[in-house]
Amino acid sequence: MTQLLRVQNFTVSRDGYGAGEGQSLERPFGTADPAAFFTWAGATASWPNRTDPGGSRGLDDYFTRDFGNNIGAEIMGRNKFAPLRGPWLDEEWRGWWGDEPPFHTPVFVLTHHPRPSFSRGETTFHFVDDEPAAVLELAKAAANGRDVRLGGGAQTVREFLDADLVDAMHVAVCDVEVGGGSRLWTSPDELDDRFHHEAIPSPSGVTHHLFWR
Amino acid sequence: MTQLLRVQNFTVSRDGYGAGEGQSLERPFGTADPAAFFTWAGATASWPNRTDPGGSRGLDDYFTRDFGNNIGAEIMGRNKFAPLRGPWLDEEWRGWWGDEPPFHTPVFVLTHHPRPSFSRGETTFHFVDDEPAAVLELAKAAANGRDVRLGGGAQTVREFLDADLVDAMHVAVCDVEVGGGSRLWTSPDELDDRFHHEAIPSPSGVTHHLFWR
Repeated sequence: MTQLLRVQNFTVSRDGYGAGEGQSLERPFGTADPAAFFTWAGATASWPNRTDPGGSRGLDDYFTRDFGNNIGAEIMGRNKFAPLRGPWLDEEWRGWWGDEPPFHTPVFVLTHHPRPSFSRGETTFHFVDDEPAAVLELAKAAANGRDVRLGGGAQTVREFLDADLVDAMHVAVCDVEVGGGSRLWTSPDELDDRFHHEAIPSPSGVTHHLFWR
Repeated sequence: MTQLLRVQNFTVSRDGYGAGEGQSLERPFGTADPAAFFTWAGATASWPNRTDPGGSRGLDDYFTRDFGNNIGAEIMGRNKFAPLRGPWLDEEWRGWWGDEPPFHTPVFVLTHHPRPSFSRGETTFHFVDDEPAAVLELAKAAANGRDVRLGGGAQTVREFLDADLVDAMHVAVCDVEVGGGSRLWTSPDELDDRFHHEAIPSPSGVTHHLFWR
């Protein structure tokens, strides 16, 4: 089986932003309201961070329950790991993902400031300073024959799209405007020259966009 | 985690039939045209019986790729295994599923005529003569903590629905009339008193119906 690079459950605003301006430790999405972005996913039975039982098993759940399906590694941008820019000031703080990160695989964090790998639960974070194609090779080797998830943020997804390395992509568009920040696109249709594209409205209010070759 | 009983990718006609009349060895769906029922699934990248590469990764693929996700056993009616009614005439013929059945788990075949279990590839077929609740207990024990798939046909799904044992159900309704045979429902809405229910039209022409508690 070919190993795919897949974007899964990545949410952007109606105007294409994955996060607002002014990201900080307290506000991982900056000026954007995380509730507007993630209510659709958090309501599902298979939301990876769910701690209580229950949750919906409608359309949205098919997307959240596919999150780890046949995934062997993740690639993420530095600012999905931590809000800091420039050199790491405090390597004791191990990012936003806590003692049981939801990835359960190797994770490759893109950064110009490499630091030692470490593990939390079943997840090991590696820090790499290289081009998208080279990082993808590393992640595929670590994924043990399974697919690689491209985890975001928007700028990171954009870099891999620009390098034409993305095989399949699921983006949920939520019904809110952000106005500035980290942007995936001005319109989902701008990828139609390179991908098949289906748009499926969900009763939760988001529209699921699926792209594939 | 609770073990669920899930119906996955079960396809019925617009008038609610899972198969037509006159099932035979050569025509597993009797008078119904299998192409009308399964073109939506066969076009997807994750169709379990796919032998060539390629296939779509749109909405329909989320359903076919969920087929084996966290499934540890299947329950099927006798006529999903073979067309014969009454005593088995020829135990040498091992059903429709070939040398590499797509289940890869224990499968419990409901029949009033038990016969010895046998394995093909990663699938083991067991033949059981019991009430739905008792068969579900067997299947859950065999599923090793994972969910149980209720594989059909329509009459078997109906029996488990009538016993109120189904936790989640995905039924694809294809745009064809069959007129007679094995029927799941007269209308999907007749389950709305017991289940949440979402209906999602797919560009392939089927409408996906999702039911859950």
